[in-house]
Parts: sequence; C-alpha cells; structure tokens
Amino acid sequence: MDAKKKVSIAVVKRLPRYYRYLADLLKMDITRISSKELSARMGITASQIRQDLNCFGGFGQQGYGYNVESLYNEIGKILGLDNDYRAIIVGAGNMGQALANYENFERRGFKIVGIFDVDPELVGRHIKGLEVLHSDTLDEFTKSNKVDVAMLCVPYDKTPIVADRVARLGIKGLWNFSPMDLKLPYDVVIENVHLSDGLMVLGYRLNEMLKREKEDKKKHKK
Amino acid sequence: MDAKKKVSIAVVKRLPRYYRYLADLLKMDITRISSKELSARMGITASQIRQDLNCFGGFGQQGYGYNVESLYNEIGKILGLDNDYRAIIVGAGNMGQALANYENFERRGFKIVGIFDVDPELVGRHIKGLEVLHSDTLDEFTKSNKVDVAMLCVPYDKTPIVADRVARLGIKGLWNFSPMDLKLPYDVVIENVHLSDGLMVLGYRLNEMLKREKEDKKKHKK
Repeated sequence: MDAKKKVSIAVVKRLPRYYRYLADLLKMDITRISSKELSARMGITASQIRQDLNCFGGFGQQGYGYNVESLYNEIGKILGLDNDYRAIIVGAGNMGQALANYENFERRGFKIVGIFDVDPELVGRHIKGLEVLHSDTLDEFTKSNKVDVAMLCVPYDKTPIVADRVARLGIKGLWNFSPMDLKLPYDVVIENVHLSDGLMVLGYRLNEMLKREKEDKKKHKK
Repeated sequence: MDAKKKVSIAVVKRLPRYYRYLADLLKMDITRISSKELSARMGITASQIRQDLNCFGGFGQQGYGYNVESLYNEIGKILGLDNDYRAIIVGAGNMGQALANYENFERRGFKIVGIFDVDPELVGRHIKGLEVLHSDTLDEFTKSNKVDVAMLCVPYDKTPIVADRVARLGIKGLWNFSPMDLKLPYDVVIENVHLSDGLMVLGYRLNEMLKREKEDKKKHKK
C-alpha cells in the first residue's frame, strides 16, 4: 500500500470525517464494514467512499469490506496524527481559551506548549496548566522551544501583522481564527477557519426546511 | 433566473466562500470578474466555478464575466442572509462567549437574543449587552421569544440532552460545537462544527511541505 501517493486536497479534507466515523465504529466493537454500510451512516455515496479510499491503495476487500481498525490506523497515519506537533496559541481571549481547553487536539498529534497575549489582565494567568506569557517574549520562546504551529486568535485588524511575525520566527503552520483568508509571502501552511460559513449553510438548510413545511401545510389544507 | 432550483448541498457548502471573495472584490471596487480571474484568486478551477454558479441560472455573460455586485447579492439571497434569524447561545463558557463576541453573525442574518448557562458564576453576567440567563428559564424564554437557532456550546457529555431539550422547545436549527456528530429524531437542521478537522488538514499539509523541503535539501546536497 502506497500512502505516499499524491492525494487531492479535496479528498484530504474528507479524511477527518472518515476518521471520526471509524473511531465511533471501533467504540461499538464493529470490526469490519462495507462501503454501503459506511455510506448509509455518513451520507456519502458508496462509490465516493470507494473512490476516496482507493486513493490510498485499496484497503477494502471484495465481499469482506473494510477492516475498521486498520483503515482507522492508516487514515490516522496519512493525516499525520502520529506526529508530535508543538503548537502555541496567540491571543488568550475567549477563543484562545476555548482552544486551550479543547480536549481533542493532543489526540490529533498537536500539543499546546505556550499561550501568549498582550493584555496585562491575561498575562500571568494559568490556563490548562500553562502560564499566559507576554507576546513580547515570543522570539525568545521560539528560540528555546520547537514550535510548529501557531493558532491565531487575535483581533481581526491585528491578524496580518501577528501572522507575519510568527512566520518570520520560522513557525510553519498557521491556524487562523480571524474571519479573513490570510495569505503570506512565505513558505508556510495556512488553514483559515471561517466559523460563519457553517452558520450560512445552516441558514440555507433551515430556509429549505421551513419552505417545505409551509408547502406541506398548504397541501393539507386543500 | 430561478434561484429556487434544487441545489446540491456540496455546492451550497462552497457558496459562503464565493460570498466572501465577492465581498473582497466589492471592497476593492472591482465591478466585474471572469471565471478565470476568480479561479486564480480562489484556487478552484474555472470550470468548477462556472458549473457551481450555473446551478443558480447563469449569472455570467460570455466575454463580460460576472457582475460582482449582482452575483454577491444573489448568493446572499440564496444563502438567506436577508433573513432575520434569532439565535440563542446555550453554554456561556469560553466558546459561548467567543461566539457572542463574534462580529460577523448579524451580517449573516443571525441575531443573538439570549445566552444561557447553569453555572452560578456566569448567570447574571453581561456579555455584549445580554444578561446570561439560567438554563432553567429556557422554556419560558422560548414561549415569549421567537428563537430559530440554538448554538450549543455545552460540555461534550451534556450535548445530547441539551440538544434534545431545545429541539422539543421548537427550535429548528442547531449549531453544535461539541466534537460529535449530533443526530436527533426530529425535523431539525443540525450543523456540527468539528474544529479539529481543520487542524488535521493543517497537519497533513504541514507534513507534505516538510517532506518536500527535506527532499529539496537532499537534492541540493547531491
């Protein structure tokens, strides 16, 4: 099996979801599953599932289906969850603190090793066992600590300048929570989180459902 | 133009991104754009863009491209951003407070009208001008206030029971921030936010970049 094969980013973006579903199956002691069953659970067509998973070299066996545990492990490896990435949070406001308290990241291969802010009200406080450090000490910190990823939770207008600074310090991965598509002229990887995108999709689906209900009511009246 | 045509959810999920890019173009006073230019900006193929936008009935004109403002307005309408949805936040911890402070939602057609928690430390506090109410008062609140959407920011193990409760109160849209794919046996729309999915994609892309850099270094040594 050749996991090094080049995979499209569209497929990669679907992998975390497969990974979560497989984790659920493992918890239920389900050891194997067909693409059809997985399709019913996930709301993705069986042929899409087969096509996606074939990208990594056919884990499935005709008539047997997928071995849940080995598929789970393989996807984890492809996503690099066995890596030890070290992350800092820049901005210790509500969003930064929410991330610090999020249970899931360490299991995904990301360890939070530092939290930074400029607000004297926040600097010196402890969050999840880490002292909030002043952002002025970032340079010093990255010199004596390996840092792979910065989670940016700073105000909108501060984001570009903070992003530029952490990239210059050699931090290669940026996870940006400001509602902007951050771009930088360096060789860094940026994932922009757009919270309100999901809300807009919710709004669309809600609209559709309410329209449907209205039409159903009309029909019943007739 | 027939905006009521049935559109696949995959296309709908891409619309918020189009909407953001078009907003940026408007800010730069760009009045029209070709699918080719939009493609270069967004990292989506021009043919994908044409296909996506054709779903809504061909806003583009051969040789002219898209009228940015009218496309922006149409997508906004399709996403239902001109709706007045009323939302409550359930769970006023860090994530709930981060959402309450998020600037973007009102412009997306969602007004936050209430914040709830059970923690006596939080109940009675004011966040963005709203008093945090005790969750026990939810039933009463929804009787005298129209509420369309609940943003669920409660601990993982409390999520199913809270979700069930708000759905029984007649709230039709649920935006869930717990790392679980929430499902309910009612006619409600649920959007599950999986923060760590984006982090896993970041990890994958970081891995790929670091591998590439390593290989480049090897080549230079030769």
